[in-house]
Amino acid sequence: MIKSSIAPDGREYPLPTEEENELERNLLLEITQEQRALGRKIVAVQGLGFVGCVMAAVVADATDKDGKPIYFVHGHQRPSKRSFWKVPVINSGVPPVSSSDPEVPQIFKRTVREKKNFRATSVEAVYSMVDIVVVDIQLDATKPAFGQAEKGYCDITAFREGIRVLGQNINPECLVLVETTVPPGTCEKVVKPILETEFTKRGIDITTNPPLIAHSYERVMPGAKYVSSIRDYWRVFSGVNPKSIELCREFLTNVLNVESYPLTQLDSTNASELAKTMENSYRATNIALTLEWARFAEEIGVDIFKVRDAIRKRKGTHDNLLRPSLGVGGYCLTKDPVLANWAMGALFDLPGQLAVAINSVNINDTMPLHTIELIRQEHEDLKNLRISVLGVSYLENVGDTRHSPSKTLVEFLRKDLALVSAHDPYVEHWDELEEVEVEKDLSAMLEGSEVVIFAVGHDQYKNIEPKDLIDMCKTRPLIIDCSNFLDDIKINKYKGLGCKVRGVGKGHII
Amino acid sequence: MIKSSIAPDGREYPLPTEEENELERNLLLEITQEQRALGRKIVAVQGLGFVGCVMAAVVADATDKDGKPIYFVHGHQRPSKRSFWKVPVINSGVPPVSSSDPEVPQIFKRTVREKKNFRATSVEAVYSMVDIVVVDIQLDATKPAFGQAEKGYCDITAFREGIRVLGQNINPECLVLVETTVPPGTCEKVVKPILETEFTKRGIDITTNPPLIAHSYERVMPGAKYVSSIRDYWRVFSGVNPKSIELCREFLTNVLNVESYPLTQLDSTNASELAKTMENSYRATNIALTLEWARFAEEIGVDIFKVRDAIRKRKGTHDNLLRPSLGVGGYCLTKDPVLANWAMGALFDLPGQLAVAINSVNINDTMPLHTIELIRQEHEDLKNLRISVLGVSYLENVGDTRHSPSKTLVEFLRKDLALVSAHDPYVEHWDELEEVEVEKDLSAMLEGSEVVIFAVGHDQYKNIEPKDLIDMCKTRPLIIDCSNFLDDIKINKYKGLGCKVRGVGKGHII
Repeated sequence: MIKSSIAPDGREYPLPTEEENELERNLLLEITQEQRALGRKIVAVQGLGFVGCVMAAVVADATDKDGKPIYFVHGHQRPSKRSFWKVPVINSGVPPVSSSDPEVPQIFKRTVREKKNFRATSVEAVYSMVDIVVVDIQLDATKPAFGQAEKGYCDITAFREGIRVLGQNINPECLVLVETTVPPGTCEKVVKPILETEFTKRGIDITTNPPLIAHSYERVMPGAKYVSSIRDYWRVFSGVNPKSIELCREFLTNVLNVESYPLTQLDSTNASELAKTMENSYRATNIALTLEWARFAEEIGVDIFKVRDAIRKRKGTHDNLLRPSLGVGGYCLTKDPVLANWAMGALFDLPGQLAVAINSVNINDTMPLHTIELIRQEHEDLKNLRISVLGVSYLENVGDTRHSPSKTLVEFLRKDLALVSAHDPYVEHWDELEEVEVEKDLSAMLEGSEVVIFAVGHDQYKNIEPKDLIDMCKTRPLIIDCSNFLDDIKINKYKGLGCKVRGVGKGHII
Repeated sequence: MIKSSIAPDGREYPLPTEEENELERNLLLEITQEQRALGRKIVAVQGLGFVGCVMAAVVADATDKDGKPIYFVHGHQRPSKRSFWKVPVINSGVPPVSSSDPEVPQIFKRTVREKKNFRATSVEAVYSMVDIVVVDIQLDATKPAFGQAEKGYCDITAFREGIRVLGQNINPECLVLVETTVPPGTCEKVVKPILETEFTKRGIDITTNPPLIAHSYERVMPGAKYVSSIRDYWRVFSGVNPKSIELCREFLTNVLNVESYPLTQLDSTNASELAKTMENSYRATNIALTLEWARFAEEIGVDIFKVRDAIRKRKGTHDNLLRPSLGVGGYCLTKDPVLANWAMGALFDLPGQLAVAINSVNINDTMPLHTIELIRQEHEDLKNLRISVLGVSYLENVGDTRHSPSKTLVEFLRKDLALVSAHDPYVEHWDELEEVEVEKDLSAMLEGSEVVIFAVGHDQYKNIEPKDLIDMCKTRPLIIDCSNFLDDIKINKYKGLGCKVRGVGKGHII
């Protein structure tokens, strides 16, 4: 039986055979030689996930002052059933991610099909042919118990294995630029020893050829400015020695819009790695604070969102204040504090915890339970209650469901035997909660709803007129607004139509 | 024996006699009539503390479109031994506070002596003559146990008494504008019932004459822009009924620079009161987070301040990130979370705590102990260690010592029998720690120091050249930098001179 990898559109791509791999190796050599002859440096991007695939295209899209490409980019993806399909899809000039950003399909078409300097492969030998590897291997935190992020850890087995492959293949002059968000200390304490060991095995003298390792973290945002958020934004970087720092600076200067967003160099990769996890911990803490004030506001008849607007007038000192919501999702704020907290003990043998940041993750992870409390204020027993959840992604107008708080919401509602249905215009398939079908027909789903939860602020939901929603429901449901998606006018319309309304942090409507 | 009140400069002012008070009452009536004849409205400011005295001058300084004063201001201060001196001092045209802001003496001279529309009094009958009272009574939180802010409470006896005086005296049409930072709920649950009770006792029908109460909080900063921080800045306000809101809006529009800083109206005084305590809780939480990351940075050789600068490049989302330091002082961040937390139970009978905010206060209050840990890394036994503390105020280039973290530092060092001396160019007398004399001769103090702590970033300290400091010490002291007051160049100079250097969050120097 031939194994194959299935793309989200259902197309099957058979995994490559050994013969095909052999042909691919020769092709890679040929392409690489051709591209070097054009004066281009050769880059590999390791891991074609959410960041890696777009970063690869951005690198390929970089041009010199004459408008000519500076780099040829090999995107490398392991030939796994889960992800191999990305290789043929990219090579057809199509992005392996869906996005509302029109630049995403454009940049793939431009680099793969027009400039022909971006190509994907699943063959590891590619690393022996390149000047720079950008490491974008996925690295997640595991939280074994709900609401106990202090028990979280980071399984770095796959990451270590990826680095080992580099050590076995790369030229010692090749720069390894880690772009993955990693636990602080990873470049010095994980990447460097592995590369040194593998270099030594290959007979490379690491005193004259120390591995060249740098770290620079992206600040990508899914959504309408996905590509731009990689290219046109502030970057922090550092390296394990002066040569790494110089090579990294040169590369980032070629690839990113450093004229508008000059690079920030830090003293060490420890510092750069710490910066990324700290900046996301800062945001996680910022959100965690808002929940207790939202609850207080609810009890004393205050709208916390109006309070927030008043506070945020103080630009530069108070305008970062975030807002309470259903909860916190996505791939950064939910895990980065855990990576750093784990690193303290695991990589540095330090006692203690990053207690403020970790406590914030716990508050944020359990935040969806507060929305359930709001429902219980009207319906003590959730059993057989028909509840419609509007939005399952973690961010408005985006289909990204990674660590979505709607998952926690739906799971806990189902635990209490509520009859939950969920809708999202951006999500075809809810990978993280496969047993829940994401409805596409809003009207059909809403019919008979006893509770409607505005969970995510997709424009489609914000634009629904109360009368139209009630017409679809054919009931007078309890309306729950998770994060100020309804203004006072709409809330009053719902009330006028005979609905009760509750909102996170919206005590003034009760 | 005649009781008297002693000003900071040592001058004695006898407290007024009953006869003098009688004369004063007549004078107040006369002045008020004169001023009304000039078309001016009459304002009283209740409490001439740090905010009240400058606010009173700002109100008096407000002019109409023809440049004529809109208000006459009576500043009211109770005739206590501690504070009565402010009355004659203000009436001589001199501010009762010292400040580096040149506008402070100017605005007192201009309003008291030139425009002659600001005058101080200690007679309560003044409240019967005014259109508006601005309440600036001091209201502090009590924290009965160090590092246990959850036990903190707010003694509102004096505040209630002040409001009762208003209820006994004011015209029912008079607006009571509370500017004091109060526990959320205070206007509705404390001020309103007291005024209603007193009005009713006086035979005023509170159904036709409900008390007019508003809340608007200042965001004053001591230092070089003290006056401007009251007048030229964003203001939030609300009132207990539409008339209160309108009167408050009119008053603030006349008095403040609302063209550049438009007013923000909230739905209720609960909301306005909550906003103030939440915005300071936001900052307190922000700082608390930095301590654990500073410790981590110290352990892994990272400079947290450079990391912070890198993070803060992200304007609007990350640039509020504050910094670790000796600790947190002043009158707002140390108490406002406690006011709100106390209000939950005491004013609203709510269970639970504002745990994130209160935990942050605890971290911040105990933050000075981390600086002592840094000393212990070099000197395990503090007994008889000669330690010089540079700076005892809570803010750089300001002489304000309220809740200064240097107090905690010095107290704990003395507890361990260290020989501590302290210097501050801005502080004449350390009111909160009277047993410690604040040295004025830096050179004499430093001689023989074994540890020098850069506790506060006064310019004078930042400008000291390492060689000069060592010359004064005549030793090679351990240098402790509490909040990035020394750059890498200076740190290296100290090291070159044979000193060890440690810094909060500065692991890269070890």
